[in-house]
Amino acid sequence: MHIFVCTNRRPDDNPKGSCAAHGSETLREHLKDAQKRLGLKDVRVNSAGCLDRCGHGPVLVIYPEGIWYSFRSTADIDEILETHILSGRRVERLMVDKPFLPKIGTEVSG
Amino acid sequence: MHIFVCTNRRPDDNPKGSCAAHGSETLREHLKDAQKRLGLKDVRVNSAGCLDRCGHGPVLVIYPEGIWYSFRSTADIDEILETHILSGRRVERLMVDKPFLPKIGTEVSG
Repeated sequence: MHIFVCTNRRPDDNPKGSCAAHGSETLREHLKDAQKRLGLKDVRVNSAGCLDRCGHGPVLVIYPEGIWYSFRSTADIDEILETHILSGRRVERLMVDKPFLPKIGTEVSG
Repeated sequence: MHIFVCTNRRPDDNPKGSCAAHGSETLREHLKDAQKRLGLKDVRVNSAGCLDRCGHGPVLVIYPEGIWYSFRSTADIDEILETHILSGRRVERLMVDKPFLPKIGTEVSG
């Protein structure tokens, strides 16, 4: 599992903003610390330049699934970690796209 | 198709070296220019922090396939562009791993 966290930083006065300006570097470190603490050797938490989803930032994308998440807090990161990375499910409320999922409201077993 | 090019830079005296010290930023620009020139809207050429394949660097990885390439020159980049990105085949001589391919030497039609 290869996770790319946008850590692009634009100048503070840039109207587009940037993921780093919204704390993505610190939140990436939080995820990386958890990955190390849990010894998840098959998971790599990478930094990436602008992922071109600025309107949803901060964002990360998890491959090979190609699932995009928007996150704002360590609680969001923890939920992505526990639900997606460790349990193989999806955090629907944080997903940027929902291409492979049943509609929200559909019950998923397990 | 999402392409991540390692543009990590270590200090020049670091014995591990780094992809950027071997020209990865310029080679990424070369690929990005080609992507724009050809109008490949479904291809994104991203920069990434250390991809942890330093011994093969400079490296890039193409998702969702998860195919890793080692490259040294604009000629290598052009071959990855034409053979993998445009034609959907593999550049076996540049692949870091060859998980889904027949052994080298096996003829591949086309």
